[in-house]
Amino acid sequence: MSECALEALLQGVKEGHISIQDAVQKMKAAPFEDIDFAKIDHHRSLRQGYPEVIYGESKTAEQILGITEKLFEKGNNILITRASIEVYQTISARFLEAKYNALGRTITLHVTSLPKPNSYIAIVAAGTSDLYVVEEAYETALILGNDVQKIVDVGVAGIHRLFAHLEIIQNAKVVIVIAGMEGALASVIGGLVDKPVIAVPTSVGYGASFGGVAALLSMLNSCASGVSVVNIDNGFGAAYNASIINHL
Amino acid sequence: MSECALEALLQGVKEGHISIQDAVQKMKAAPFEDIDFAKIDHHRSLRQGYPEVIYGESKTAEQILGITEKLFEKGNNILITRASIEVYQTISARFLEAKYNALGRTITLHVTSLPKPNSYIAIVAAGTSDLYVVEEAYETALILGNDVQKIVDVGVAGIHRLFAHLEIIQNAKVVIVIAGMEGALASVIGGLVDKPVIAVPTSVGYGASFGGVAALLSMLNSCASGVSVVNIDNGFGAAYNASIINHL
Amino acid sequence: MSECALEALLQGVKEGHISIQDAVQKMKAAPFEDIDFAKIDHHRSLRQGYPEVIYGESKTAEQILGITEKLFEKGNNILITRASIEVYQTISARFLEAKYNALGRTITLHVTSLPKPNSYIAIVAAGTSDLYVVEEAYETALILGNDVQKIVDVGVAGIHRLFAHLEIIQNAKVVIVIAGMEGALASVIGGLVDKPVIAVPTSVGYGASFGGVAALLSMLNSCASGVSVVNIDNGFGAAYNASIINHL
Amino acid sequence: MSECALEALLQGVKEGHISIQDAVQKMKAAPFEDIDFAKIDHHRSLRQGYPEVIYGESKTAEQILGITEKLFEKGNNILITRASIEVYQTISARFLEAKYNALGRTITLHVTSLPKPNSYIAIVAAGTSDLYVVEEAYETALILGNDVQKIVDVGVAGIHRLFAHLEIIQNAKVVIVIAGMEGALASVIGGLVDKPVIAVPTSVGYGASFGGVAALLSMLNSCASGVSVVNIDNGFGAAYNASIINHL
Amino acid sequence: MSECALEALLQGVKEGHISIQDAVQKMKAAPFEDIDFAKIDHHRSLRQGYPEVIYGESKTAEQILGITEKLFEKGNNILITRASIEVYQTISARFLEAKYNALGRTITLHVTSLPKPNSYIAIVAAGTSDLYVVEEAYETALILGNDVQKIVDVGVAGIHRLFAHLEIIQNAKVVIVIAGMEGALASVIGGLVDKPVIAVPTSVGYGASFGGVAALLSMLNSCASGVSVVNIDNGFGAAYNASIINHL
Amino acid sequence: MSECALEALLQGVKEGHISIQDAVQKMKAAPFEDIDFAKIDHHRSLRQGYPEVIYGESKTAEQILGITEKLFEKGNNILITRASIEVYQTISARFLEAKYNALGRTITLHVTSLPKPNSYIAIVAAGTSDLYVVEEAYETALILGNDVQKIVDVGVAGIHRLFAHLEIIQNAKVVIVIAGMEGALASVIGGLVDKPVIAVPTSVGYGASFGGVAALLSMLNSCASGVSVVNIDNGFGAAYNASIINHL
Amino acid sequence: MSECALEALLQGVKEGHISIQDAVQKMKAAPFEDIDFAKIDHHRSLRQGYPEVIYGESKTAEQILGITEKLFEKGNNILITRASIEVYQTISARFLEAKYNALGRTITLHVTSLPKPNSYIAIVAAGTSDLYVVEEAYETALILGNDVQKIVDVGVAGIHRLFAHLEIIQNAKVVIVIAGMEGALASVIGGLVDKPVIAVPTSVGYGASFGGVAALLSMLNSCASGVSVVNIDNGFGAAYNASIINHL
Amino acid sequence: MSECALEALLQGVKEGHISIQDAVQKMKAAPFEDIDFAKIDHHRSLRQGYPEVIYGESKTAEQILGITEKLFEKGNNILITRASIEVYQTISARFLEAKYNALGRTITLHVTSLPKPNSYIAIVAAGTSDLYVVEEAYETALILGNDVQKIVDVGVAGIHRLFAHLEIIQNAKVVIVIAGMEGALASVIGGLVDKPVIAVPTSVGYGASFGGVAALLSMLNSCASGVSVVNIDNGFGAAYNASIINHL
Repeated sequence: MSECALEALLQGVKEGHISIQDAVQKMKAAPFEDIDFAKIDHHRSLRQGYPEVIYGESKTAEQILGITEKLFEKGNNILITRASIEVYQTISARFLEAKYNALGRTITLHVTSLPKPNSYIAIVAAGTSDLYVVEEAYETALILGNDVQKIVDVGVAGIHRLFAHLEIIQNAKVVIVIAGMEGALASVIGGLVDKPVIAVPTSVGYGASFGGVAALLSMLNSCASGVSVVNIDNGFGAAYNASIINHL
Repeated sequence: MSECALEALLQGVKEGHISIQDAVQKMKAAPFEDIDFAKIDHHRSLRQGYPEVIYGESKTAEQILGITEKLFEKGNNILITRASIEVYQTISARFLEAKYNALGRTITLHVTSLPKPNSYIAIVAAGTSDLYVVEEAYETALILGNDVQKIVDVGVAGIHRLFAHLEIIQNAKVVIVIAGMEGALASVIGGLVDKPVIAVPTSVGYGASFGGVAALLSMLNSCASGVSVVNIDNGFGAAYNASIINHL
Repeated sequence: MSECALEALLQGVKEGHISIQDAVQKMKAAPFEDIDFAKIDHHRSLRQGYPEVIYGESKTAEQILGITEKLFEKGNNILITRASIEVYQTISARFLEAKYNALGRTITLHVTSLPKPNSYIAIVAAGTSDLYVVEEAYETALILGNDVQKIVDVGVAGIHRLFAHLEIIQNAKVVIVIAGMEGALASVIGGLVDKPVIAVPTSVGYGASFGGVAALLSMLNSCASGVSVVNIDNGFGAAYNASIINHL
Repeated sequence: MSECALEALLQGVKEGHISIQDAVQKMKAAPFEDIDFAKIDHHRSLRQGYPEVIYGESKTAEQILGITEKLFEKGNNILITRASIEVYQTISARFLEAKYNALGRTITLHVTSLPKPNSYIAIVAAGTSDLYVVEEAYETALILGNDVQKIVDVGVAGIHRLFAHLEIIQNAKVVIVIAGMEGALASVIGGLVDKPVIAVPTSVGYGASFGGVAALLSMLNSCASGVSVVNIDNGFGAAYNASIINHL
Repeated sequence: MSECALEALLQGVKEGHISIQDAVQKMKAAPFEDIDFAKIDHHRSLRQGYPEVIYGESKTAEQILGITEKLFEKGNNILITRASIEVYQTISARFLEAKYNALGRTITLHVTSLPKPNSYIAIVAAGTSDLYVVEEAYETALILGNDVQKIVDVGVAGIHRLFAHLEIIQNAKVVIVIAGMEGALASVIGGLVDKPVIAVPTSVGYGASFGGVAALLSMLNSCASGVSVVNIDNGFGAAYNASIINHL
Repeated sequence: MSECALEALLQGVKEGHISIQDAVQKMKAAPFEDIDFAKIDHHRSLRQGYPEVIYGESKTAEQILGITEKLFEKGNNILITRASIEVYQTISARFLEAKYNALGRTITLHVTSLPKPNSYIAIVAAGTSDLYVVEEAYETALILGNDVQKIVDVGVAGIHRLFAHLEIIQNAKVVIVIAGMEGALASVIGGLVDKPVIAVPTSVGYGASFGGVAALLSMLNSCASGVSVVNIDNGFGAAYNASIINHL
Repeated sequence: MSECALEALLQGVKEGHISIQDAVQKMKAAPFEDIDFAKIDHHRSLRQGYPEVIYGESKTAEQILGITEKLFEKGNNILITRASIEVYQTISARFLEAKYNALGRTITLHVTSLPKPNSYIAIVAAGTSDLYVVEEAYETALILGNDVQKIVDVGVAGIHRLFAHLEIIQNAKVVIVIAGMEGALASVIGGLVDKPVIAVPTSVGYGASFGGVAALLSMLNSCASGVSVVNIDNGFGAAYNASIINHL
Repeated sequence: MSECALEALLQGVKEGHISIQDAVQKMKAAPFEDIDFAKIDHHRSLRQGYPEVIYGESKTAEQILGITEKLFEKGNNILITRASIEVYQTISARFLEAKYNALGRTITLHVTSLPKPNSYIAIVAAGTSDLYVVEEAYETALILGNDVQKIVDVGVAGIHRLFAHLEIIQNAKVVIVIAGMEGALASVIGGLVDKPVIAVPTSVGYGASFGGVAALLSMLNSCASGVSVVNIDNGFGAAYNASIINHL
């Protein structure tokens, strides 16, 4: 209930059109729309057109199809992450325009176009083994309405390759750095750019990489000051975060 | 060596003012200023006036004073983090204008004024026990040239207190959330704003908080999509990161 | 051996009907029924009709069937947890009335009706991915003789959805909160109700969720005072615990 | 703002005593008391007289005194946990009636009497080394208005001592079990009673006890079904929880 | 080379039957049998007839068959642990008398009879889920020449069942306690017997049992003094250890 | 209550000297001495003269003195572990004959002599840094009535030193191996003797020794079959265990 | 751009053959070949003929074939690690001379011969279960141009077997020690040789070996001074390291 | 006993100068010097003049003085690591020529000069906070007879500083890289040199650095192939290792 709606209601009470009991009832019947709760949902309205996101892990193809159909009616773009090829087959039988990124395991349904900022997001990855996270981040960034530059296979053990792409990294508005094993790339890039760096540890590696923990700790302890971190393999979260920044 | 300096040098060679040997020597003697390395240091020039930061932990007061004096000559602002009162006494004997934030354990030396963006950073903390991290973040954000709004003691166990401040949080350009124990505040706020949220786990707690690990893991696993995380107790890093975003 | 049985025995000795040797023998032959041990087993008698519980993990269908048949003769209800569909097929071939909850992986055999308290247990879960634990808790609570209210998909990242159900949660006698990832829901609900909250971390998540450890630590460190915790994915234990409280 | 206060306000508007602008202002100025938020704070009113709790760790004596004075004006009982003797000296200089439990490190200020249920809480501890947690739980339970029975030094390595107290444990409405090292006592008691058992691991031990982790894990994995767990050394949380149950 | 063989050799040198060069050669050619190394291998001769043990994990059936054939020629008994049914099929095709314990995953080949002590080993296990470790320990103890008493399903949550078997446990020369989940059984039995207790944590459990770590830590922190621990699921090691003690 | 005492009681009932009510009362008043519980405490009688052990950690000198005085009256030997010099000063002021082992931090009070077996316990330690555990084990073994041979500074990095003492190690009835850092000594000795080896990891080391965890894991994974393990730094437990075996 | 190429360029400028603009352009167009970057890539030239290494894990056979074809054109030897038999089938269909080491899971393509030093690398392994790492190290060492001596199954539990091979170990220029379980072999060998020892923990073991962590920690804490460590199962890294040392 | 000494002994037996009993006795009395054990101690003779090393942690000044005096008589150089200023005062009172490195906490006693190789060891450290490890490594390398080049404060966050020193790093025979926090420097340098890189994680950092574990894991997972790792803060071990390589 907006402030002016409240004033109208009170006016009605004052003028006798509305009984006190009815006014009280009306106020109670307006859950989440009273003045305070309006604040809570306020930012949702800013996100019109934003894609709805379905986390596909541990859901059956049928469950995901059901959710997709319900969300599709709202007219928003749809992003399904961690989707297997079987899920895609089910979804694409119903939504012919659905696209599958096999490496990133994402399904995307572009329904409406979102306004894009002029700036772009750089996605930088240490090795080809990290590509599954790169692609998840890439598809997420695209459907959220961003231009993206991907730079892959620029690990710190061959640092001259990184320098060849430095300009494109430094000109981005926000940089996503994706690396497994020792995750050192985040610190190196963090020292070379003055933009926000969002680091994504990947579960690439073996032994003492502990499924990405080594890279995670490395990134959390980065000696470069502008680095923040998301969960292991969370390409989606990094891109969502980067998109918010890119749209600021 | 800038491109035009290089051209001048070549001109000298062409005109015979400079011998080839001297030219080669000059190029080799100009480390970090050759054309390619220029890219590497390019962003440094964008940071003119940025404060120099000294991590005070495990350095003696004399060492810190020495570094401070050297940096002071460059004319930049100076921020010393993790500084004890003893360090402050040493620094303030030499730099009368140095200010000490006892809770945040920071020393600041404001020499030049940095341009401030119109937007502000919100720093939100769960409990009064987290104040030492709040203050480190606060001083860092100030000296980096930002307006800051602090909102403290709005933990999730009394969520109505949080809602009272929701508007100020939602209107920030970037939000720093500081919480120890279970660190749930990051997720709750992440679900209420559409701005980048930088979460700082604190080492507040005991037993199974494991010095901040519980809060760290909680934040890394946040179900809210716009949350990224920095190291435990790293108020400085969060504010540095937020400042970059606030200046975008 | 009850106190009066003991008196009868002594009376027999006194009157000469029973020899001293026979009396000693009888006492020794009555293991677990002597006066002190009676205390140990005392509470068992309070649980007449309580379902017998079989933990199905790592048992073959044949082993489970064997145990079920033996327990069935006692006339108690039976609950089998962590049961695969194969186990159900074996059990239902013999016990037609056995019911399977595929999501919760439970088999239940309702033989007798237990008296239900007027109060109810609320089961609240953060996401649809947590449903497998919700259903295990639900079936357990039902067969232990409780009314249950299930509220699902009210995670903290969309906190307004939680408030819509607040009344039903606050009116429960005891609340089970089930959440994976960062497990923040337990703290939020713990701050909103004045009833015992039993938190169940789930293994839902990836990367730094470490199979439920992040949620577990989060819940153990809850800043809300009325929260206690059971093992990861232990829907059964939570419901058993809640049922004891609901029957107080 | 209660429903009848709202009706009075509307009555004032209707009758012209209160202008519409004033009414809107009044509603906005009454944060947390609007109709919907009433639900959120509903249970607070049930807790009238409940002690306010101050977590004393990492607060100075002056800070704690300040908070105490503010809370004291509300007329509630006050409990300060993790309080050093220095804090007590500061508090008792101002509040003569404050009592200190040196072992439990609690300060209590009994201002009003709370109604006590007829039932009682049993606090059972494995060893004398666990007494610091026992006392914290004990003081907490007392000030929350409970009768308490303490049974100490009944570890599983001398299980006959435990049986001597079995009756008093089995007759409690809720049992708190406090144990360090291997924490086995929780499982043993859980198997002997049919009441809720709240287990508190303690940090007593050395080496592979890892500051209470061994006991914590042991308790979380209890094969007895009615056991739930709180944080290491969290005597306060266990007693708070037990008090809620004892007052059901 | 034994001392008297050395004397004979020297005698030959003295008497001229053996040249000095031959004597030196002979000494060098007798690796591991010189006087000092004799000490190293001394205890091996005490173990005549002891079974050779093959750890079957991660070896192919063919590799295991090859090793078995080589060891069989020495005339010792043979024990293969962690053997699949496929391995057994390969072994039994060649050695008809080989016996398979499917639960314990052991293959045994009894060739010679070992002298048995009069005393026996008690193997006590908490639950039926621990039987795979019980059986590995059982077969190991048998082939090492021991009488064994197995007592299963006497977990601490139903402690009266344990007491029914107390006499048989107390009369053993050494007790193996096998338990998963919280592993409390080791402490309880350690407090009831005055014999060496060898505790085996099992990987039975889920969630915070962490594959047996909870039980392992519990056992290492046992408050009962006579308990020592072997690796998770190491039924073989416990029985080997117990057999050494039983033969003292 | 022994069997013959029970017969006497029944005789009295039969003969009319004792009323039935008195007999029942007497039986109930004899806790832990009824027929079944006799089994529980049976082994205690075997331990007559065994020292009472007080774990001194986190107890005040006064508390320890109090416990000591109470135990002293029973006429048993007394062992206080983890005792500071301050505790010793308090104890020795009252008990002049108390002896302090400063390295092992033990106080011993020899009151009665225990019968010693002919065999001995070997205590072998890797380095001089492990001596604090060696001495705790040594004093424990002595007061429990054992001959002991100590062999120190025979780490695996200088394995020839170990061989010099091999005979004395191989002739022991049971061997305690104490080692920090990588704990390899347990495996090496386990491969050289055919006696039970009880391994004690020590917290000696730094960095990735993690307070003894490296040695603990190393010992638990020993490839030598006769090795079992006790808690980090638990010299007392190892010696208690070894003493039980030495007295078999 | 080498120094003399630069001189030639400057000569051209001086003599007027090359315009200043062209010279600047040429310098900018020669990325990674300018004077400073030359340093960065300097060591690459020393590695002419060195095999290119492809980490085969998580790459498809097609991807690996593609990379192999591209690298093959450079004329270098090729090593593919962590390669499945399927990958080998794809590679060998195109490159007939490719060889597969099934145990070590390596594919090697020897194109050119590398000069071998006179010294050799010793690879020592504790058990036959470690052979998969031995073979990866072996193939790596061979293709990098080294003589290798393999010594397997010399675990510390049968230390006399190790001594039989001591001479061959002591005469190596560098020793690779491969061991799982408790990893003690590294310390024992480290104490017996005065050459660099590179220790490789393997994931062989179960329970508290934690996938190689026990061996890793053991090796990092080695009391022998000349031991350094690589990642769990990293036979390739150890051999690469050893080869660098062997070629010094 | 060397081969020729053995021949002489046998000659004496043959010629009758030495009785057989004396010969046997002599052989047994020569422990560690028989033919086989000679191999074990063989490499010791190669280390003549090598400093004796005393690990000073947890030893008293008196104990260290005692050991020093004993070792001093052998005429070797002496290195004491982890030595406090108090230890130095005690040592220097007796050995005036002892030198103390306060930062590295080492005491060195140069008695004889060791031959130095022409090559040198490079010690590279990320930050000034790592200097305590740098100095321990430096003093160790010096006393073991090496030339050393120290390069400090070249962390990856300011990578251009590293490049300024690249030549000196690339020309070393072996490189020690010392870094805390995220430890990325090891990978970057490992990618820039073709010499063995020994990485030392330091315990510098806070929060999720976990006392050096983050750097340790980072280094173990280095994507650069020539990197091996020693324990956290183990500057001594790294330098010892590097010295062996430098002397090859």
